[in-house]
Amino acid sequence: MSKLNQQAIPTLKARRLGIDTHHETVAYMRADCHVCRAEGFSALNRIRINSPENSIIATINVVHGELLEPGEIGLSEASWQRLDVNSGDSLEVSHARPLESFSFVRAKIFGGDFTADRLREVMSDITAGRYSDVHLSSFVTACTSASLNSEEIIALTDAMVGVGDRLQWDYPIVVDKHCVGGLPGNRTTPIVVAIVAAAGLVMPKTSSRAITSPAGTADTMEVLAPVDLTLEQMRNVVDQQGGCIVWGGAVSLSPADDILIRVERALELDSEAQLIASVLSKKIAAGSSHVLIDIPIGPTAKVRDQASAIRLSSSLNLVGEALDIKVQTIFTDGHQPIGYGIGPSLEARDVLNVLQNKKAGSSMLRDRALDLAGAILDMANPQAAGMGRERAKQILESGQAWKKFQAICEAQGGMREPRLAKYTHEVVSGVIGHVEHINNRYLSRLAKLAGAPADKAAGIEMHVRIGKRVETGEPLFTIHAESRGELGYAMEFLAAHPGLMIVEEEQL
Amino acid sequence: MSKLNQQAIPTLKARRLGIDTHHETVAYMRADCHVCRAEGFSALNRIRINSPENSIIATINVVHGELLEPGEIGLSEASWQRLDVNSGDSLEVSHARPLESFSFVRAKIFGGDFTADRLREVMSDITAGRYSDVHLSSFVTACTSASLNSEEIIALTDAMVGVGDRLQWDYPIVVDKHCVGGLPGNRTTPIVVAIVAAAGLVMPKTSSRAITSPAGTADTMEVLAPVDLTLEQMRNVVDQQGGCIVWGGAVSLSPADDILIRVERALELDSEAQLIASVLSKKIAAGSSHVLIDIPIGPTAKVRDQASAIRLSSSLNLVGEALDIKVQTIFTDGHQPIGYGIGPSLEARDVLNVLQNKKAGSSMLRDRALDLAGAILDMANPQAAGMGRERAKQILESGQAWKKFQAICEAQGGMREPRLAKYTHEVVSGVIGHVEHINNRYLSRLAKLAGAPADKAAGIEMHVRIGKRVETGEPLFTIHAESRGELGYAMEFLAAHPGLMIVEEEQL
Repeated sequence: MSKLNQQAIPTLKARRLGIDTHHETVAYMRADCHVCRAEGFSALNRIRINSPENSIIATINVVHGELLEPGEIGLSEASWQRLDVNSGDSLEVSHARPLESFSFVRAKIFGGDFTADRLREVMSDITAGRYSDVHLSSFVTACTSASLNSEEIIALTDAMVGVGDRLQWDYPIVVDKHCVGGLPGNRTTPIVVAIVAAAGLVMPKTSSRAITSPAGTADTMEVLAPVDLTLEQMRNVVDQQGGCIVWGGAVSLSPADDILIRVERALELDSEAQLIASVLSKKIAAGSSHVLIDIPIGPTAKVRDQASAIRLSSSLNLVGEALDIKVQTIFTDGHQPIGYGIGPSLEARDVLNVLQNKKAGSSMLRDRALDLAGAILDMANPQAAGMGRERAKQILESGQAWKKFQAICEAQGGMREPRLAKYTHEVVSGVIGHVEHINNRYLSRLAKLAGAPADKAAGIEMHVRIGKRVETGEPLFTIHAESRGELGYAMEFLAAHPGLMIVEEEQL
Repeated sequence: MSKLNQQAIPTLKARRLGIDTHHETVAYMRADCHVCRAEGFSALNRIRINSPENSIIATINVVHGELLEPGEIGLSEASWQRLDVNSGDSLEVSHARPLESFSFVRAKIFGGDFTADRLREVMSDITAGRYSDVHLSSFVTACTSASLNSEEIIALTDAMVGVGDRLQWDYPIVVDKHCVGGLPGNRTTPIVVAIVAAAGLVMPKTSSRAITSPAGTADTMEVLAPVDLTLEQMRNVVDQQGGCIVWGGAVSLSPADDILIRVERALELDSEAQLIASVLSKKIAAGSSHVLIDIPIGPTAKVRDQASAIRLSSSLNLVGEALDIKVQTIFTDGHQPIGYGIGPSLEARDVLNVLQNKKAGSSMLRDRALDLAGAILDMANPQAAGMGRERAKQILESGQAWKKFQAICEAQGGMREPRLAKYTHEVVSGVIGHVEHINNRYLSRLAKLAGAPADKAAGIEMHVRIGKRVETGEPLFTIHAESRGELGYAMEFLAAHPGLMIVEEEQL
């Protein structure tokens, strides 16, 4: 019977390569290095790397040639940050144990159900960076394809809350809102927070960045003020002003959600279950007691008909009830953009125009914001139910909301002005007629191709609404872009998709 | 109305970074480079890269720091090989158009069906390297989770044949075999090919490497002779010897399958649909007219019961009929390893012992090989049905099979000897009793953790079978490994999984 020599685990010197692989932890190892040979690593394998302080699982990319010196291990930015080491530090490298929790995903793929315990383990491993992109993609796809039942959605939401920070507030009522998206230019949140906070309620709003849309609320708000606040900073803003609008990821509320969102974005895939878990986990982790969920309905919105909206609403209520958060849904018109702008800066400009009660402000955006703020005021004060909208209107028109918004921006780090894009291209009507149809999905795609949300000033500026009569040569919308390449690509897409906006020619 | 300046597409100088990302095409770009800024790229985005000759879609990894010079674009090995350029060549870089065929995958995820046209587009994009690992993972998961109906499996198989090479033979009958796996150490193929070719039939065998097992036939055969043959070389071997055993990937038969297999391996996921499409696409592309499919059944084999085997068999027959290839299935005992070895070199040693009619040869492996060879001889000659096995036995015992096998190895590039591993560890029985149970899945996992199939000599050498009576201290099996790290990791797994082999203690 052979004897096994217990020897020290081999070490390699850390080298920061500066390669941004997003959240995925990647390690680069020389094909000829003694550790690589001894351990028998090959590409796509996963290894464990230990620093004195931390331990990560990373995907191996084998390197041929001179990129690394003998005895070095290259680290991607995500690996570097999670390990928190210095150049030249010694790292221990060993085989990664099999990812046990992925066998639960496999069972789901083959038709089984997730238990609460299993989802907790999966979320815990995802948050710890143990899932590669390939594993994350499989998990996201399985949850969409095999779909999750109510118990699974409740458990997923709870598990997502459990792996992150959780805020506690000393207020009896903490309100929140969310829009399920699918409607470009629907940027009511900053207005609603300003009104509701001005009314004396507490609304610590954490928002997400875009998944598949041209802008998330966090992207838009970032044009006007810093949104990457720490938990401590956020708490200070809320204690001072009663409200904030910050990026949820920066405070590590439901961090698994932020990791999943990157893969969902790459796949352009977001399922109902993930949507519910994503929304409610953020709200519960943020310590909300009451949340209003806006569901726009329209043929090219995310929710296309009343029946789907009712189903989604009932799932949201069920999960809310199970996890002890009061959920109310509101169905709104999702046929066309609400404001004029689509893209962070252009939407920020719309927000300012409404808050400042300017004539240039979009009346649809204003009305929508008042409906939502009113519903929240009613929710928080059932005794005065039905009075909310009138109160919201008075707060907006009196300038109290604008004053509150400025104070919130200052508290978040300082207010700033939206900037316009370098390149624009105006699209005009070729005929005399009426605007018959607007395809919101194409419009979103166009704004994204123009550079939104990564380029803040990129996007679409709408000049017309459905039903508007236009003359030949009258502007329909303007594409804004920060680079020629992106403007050109948006125009190429437009040329290939004339159904983006249909102007019905008048019969003479 | 603004005017758009049509300018030249920006170019960057090609730099080979030597990073092996496997099939995924990755491009590394400086965060501060003018193209990156102008085009607004960020991590996980996909871009199009054009050389004068070729065009690829690649995933962007943004690089901070000094890894790349200004004006350079770094390329992973897969990108470098597909573009086929030289260092410093100018490459055009532009946005990648949306991957249209992935919308078909998305439709499948949401409950739709694939049409034949859609699957052809998906397979064509996969073969062209347009799917990132994230997309591939989603496709593989969707096919498993949403499952494919018969028409989809037929269409998938046909599409996989369509995107690769297809062999034509000038023989009326071309036979082939396949084992659906799940059974470690089941290495009958080299023996069967030798017998069948010695009997005068044509058997151009293309085999796969391991997906989730410790060794594929190609891995094992590679121990004995080169298997990376070109189409032309393979044809020469078959014309000379009537048979060959080569790696299917090297001849680009069903190349999409080889790309999918890497992701299936990372996920340890292979579905029935993908199994059928994988097997039959290879066989059809290889120009086979008759194929025998061995389905081992056992509680820890891939197919666990008779009912599943019958369902799989009927699906295989259905697809075979639709695509004009004669399929016959044979159900075999899948309760325990067939040979003594698990892992490429150890299995190769078993093969040689049987072919050389040595006493040390496994009688189970010998019997299984004769059953299969006999069934193939019967299939090819229905007039003499039932006589096949006797004929196979006579060819093996007379040494004709061994002579034929040597000739095939020589024709493939030269025969070589299996090599033993550097490190071994013998596991002995702690009690007097009978071997009650062997868990094939754990056994496979143990062999993989020891380094198989990447390390040819790594694996498990079995000393007992189910039912064997053992004394205290009698050897049960030996772990073979090429590195201390891997041997240690295998032993750790063994300590945590005592159910791998159960010896029922005798009552005194």
